[in-house]
Amino acid sequence: MSVTRELAAYLVGSRPDQIPADVRHEAKRAILNYVGCAVGGSREDAVQIALKVLTPYSGERTARVLGRNERLDPLQASLLNGISSHVLDYDDTTPSNYIHPTSPAASALFAYTSTAPVAGADFVHALVLGFEVQSRIGDATYPAHYEAGWHSTGSIGVFGAAAAIAKLLELPLQNMIWAIGLAATQSAGLREMFGSMGKAFHPGRSAQSGYMGALLAKAGFTSGEYGIEGPRGFAPVTARSFDLARITTDFGSDFGLRRNTYKPFPCGIVIHPTIDACVQIHRDTKLAVRDIRAVRLKVAPLVLDLCSKRDIRKGLEGKFSVFHAAAIGLVRGKGGIAEFTDATVNDPDVKRVRETLTVAEADPSIAEDEVMVEVTLTSGEQVVKHVEHAIGNLARPMTDVELEDKFRDQAAAVLGVRRAAELIALCWSIDKLADCRTLIEATAPAP
Amino acid sequence: MSVTRELAAYLVGSRPDQIPADVRHEAKRAILNYVGCAVGGSREDAVQIALKVLTPYSGERTARVLGRNERLDPLQASLLNGISSHVLDYDDTTPSNYIHPTSPAASALFAYTSTAPVAGADFVHALVLGFEVQSRIGDATYPAHYEAGWHSTGSIGVFGAAAAIAKLLELPLQNMIWAIGLAATQSAGLREMFGSMGKAFHPGRSAQSGYMGALLAKAGFTSGEYGIEGPRGFAPVTARSFDLARITTDFGSDFGLRRNTYKPFPCGIVIHPTIDACVQIHRDTKLAVRDIRAVRLKVAPLVLDLCSKRDIRKGLEGKFSVFHAAAIGLVRGKGGIAEFTDATVNDPDVKRVRETLTVAEADPSIAEDEVMVEVTLTSGEQVVKHVEHAIGNLARPMTDVELEDKFRDQAAAVLGVRRAAELIALCWSIDKLADCRTLIEATAPAP
Repeated sequence: MSVTRELAAYLVGSRPDQIPADVRHEAKRAILNYVGCAVGGSREDAVQIALKVLTPYSGERTARVLGRNERLDPLQASLLNGISSHVLDYDDTTPSNYIHPTSPAASALFAYTSTAPVAGADFVHALVLGFEVQSRIGDATYPAHYEAGWHSTGSIGVFGAAAAIAKLLELPLQNMIWAIGLAATQSAGLREMFGSMGKAFHPGRSAQSGYMGALLAKAGFTSGEYGIEGPRGFAPVTARSFDLARITTDFGSDFGLRRNTYKPFPCGIVIHPTIDACVQIHRDTKLAVRDIRAVRLKVAPLVLDLCSKRDIRKGLEGKFSVFHAAAIGLVRGKGGIAEFTDATVNDPDVKRVRETLTVAEADPSIAEDEVMVEVTLTSGEQVVKHVEHAIGNLARPMTDVELEDKFRDQAAAVLGVRRAAELIALCWSIDKLADCRTLIEATAPAP
Repeated sequence: MSVTRELAAYLVGSRPDQIPADVRHEAKRAILNYVGCAVGGSREDAVQIALKVLTPYSGERTARVLGRNERLDPLQASLLNGISSHVLDYDDTTPSNYIHPTSPAASALFAYTSTAPVAGADFVHALVLGFEVQSRIGDATYPAHYEAGWHSTGSIGVFGAAAAIAKLLELPLQNMIWAIGLAATQSAGLREMFGSMGKAFHPGRSAQSGYMGALLAKAGFTSGEYGIEGPRGFAPVTARSFDLARITTDFGSDFGLRRNTYKPFPCGIVIHPTIDACVQIHRDTKLAVRDIRAVRLKVAPLVLDLCSKRDIRKGLEGKFSVFHAAAIGLVRGKGGIAEFTDATVNDPDVKRVRETLTVAEADPSIAEDEVMVEVTLTSGEQVVKHVEHAIGNLARPMTDVELEDKFRDQAAAVLGVRRAAELIALCWSIDKLADCRTLIEATAPAP
């Protein structure tokens, strides 16, 4: 059997009752995190522009755009959902291949299921499979594919969207092979777009392309049979080296969702340990700004290579300043959306800690997910915090409660506190819903 | 200046009156050939399936699908036009990079201009630029990009569609740079799809993607600034080696359209010399089937590697049989659409010449665009024809009259002889039309 055919056969044969309970729960964590990101990102400029430009090119507007009152046809809604869920760089990550896999798969799934009655258990099953396809293709082609310059959340995400929709459409084997092939031949997304709206466009367009590929494949639009492994197929064309056995090993027992991680803070990952340590100091000591005499950070050298600016004015710059990371942790005891606004960056207390009181030292013995923070208080007392693995890492995953906090931090601004809480409950119970639209409609703000 | 910026600046600054007359004429030849292919291909299964699947996902149906009575929104119409114009493998080719450049650019342009009043001179100008962008990027990255496995009619075609539409939308420099960037990050299309509907999907999807990129860029949706040349941009990611200077050299004096070629026969290019020679023998001698005792072909060895089947039943198989090529040339004196149907392949006269009377010999001294044909007549007389360069090559381009014959061969079946002739006249006068819709509406068959 070929790799593409073997993968397609697994997708066609998989049943919801074959997904282990821990994987189902991890899928719900991924959905909770995804919905929070999509609602939280739904006001960003990239979303507003795309919505305005593409509305005239929408068919019957049957699909909800998450977090908004507008509807579009489900292909266009997929694109919008993909943009909003990735635009804050806050969605999930599989560290083994740097893909953000939930965005492309769930963006297509939420668009589709907002137009038809789909049981939550089938949604979760399709998401598990859409995630799985990305994990397997991602692990098989990492690092060569990513290092070549592909933004794999786009270039591999398209397979996840195609597989997830094709599963809900109940495609038989031959058509599933074509859906994978049509995904392969639409695979796109360059890392050169980082720093522009083009980055968030990637999971959106891949959701839409994968979805369309599944629709065409269902109707008999053919593709090559060896979309992944053929000599001119996805893997040989986009990666110098790869291990295709990783795509077809341990079907049904190994699941990429078990290796998923969630960003606790919406900023560069190398400053996460510093926020984590400083938030802990804030919680443990209840210190006030006037109590702080000096702050000393020992960080991995890479951190200062990437994030050493302190004289900053913009929220976006704060996302890449380790000094700002220390300041918000100590002053606010948080590192959420509000801590990376222009207002917070220019807050006098935050500014003082960031620009006057904090020094940072590169220490080659400190790992990238590690930090040593020493705070000298005006009393002369020293508070020391050593974080060995920042929160959010696989070694120290965010708890369900922390994911709920993150969700509220994003969604409450759009929906209000009460409706955000209701939406959290719906995400946890999605696998019990007779019709996913109960959840989807709850993402719409008051008109 | 960066390559992307320099290219964008050329596109923004170019004026219709700067296009030399010979290039304008070649653009009209390309349009004539394109419209014939699009009308001729408009009944194929790939078109029918895509039209049926995507109609519900179309916005207001303002754009004509070429050769059909259906309308779709212009983004979906771009996709359909791209499929129909490439599905017969009959569109144009630039031999320096194997791109079929008119399909992606014109498919988007015809969709756009079917919804708004655009003067023919502006259409021709935008097509010249859309073609030019593909020629420059294609030549700069050939052969590495193509050999890696990319079907450049998709992966480079997207730049042509983006540039052509962005020009009609009158994008200023910064937005043109973003349009190119959004094209780069949607670049896709694998040669693994050859032999399936996925191949014709490529120019269609690239037309649609480029068009959408231009619309988004116009509204301020940003991309990276270095979409082509950046370290994670199109050229470094998709080609092992490239020469970016070819993108920015001789703007306004060198035009890829001058190196465009048109396929005279809808079949594998290596059997073109045989058809060419046999059609000439048929014309010169007026022979009938009963006059033929034996046919002997001397062909390049590659021809027998690729096209040596003679015991065939399907029209599609005939496209890759050098024996069928000889038979249709001698029996019918033609190599058009009708000569590659199942009916012709199973015609007793054609079958007899193909399977009983013809032998072929691989001769390493014969070039790939060359053939030596010897026909022995029942009278004992020998007729010998040596074709050194098959018709359609740059060395022996199809004449305007031959392009008209090709057009009629494709379009008359859909539109009838009289309307096909009117459409030919409209293609030749497109640069004089006040509104391109005069031409576009003439592609619709009687309802």
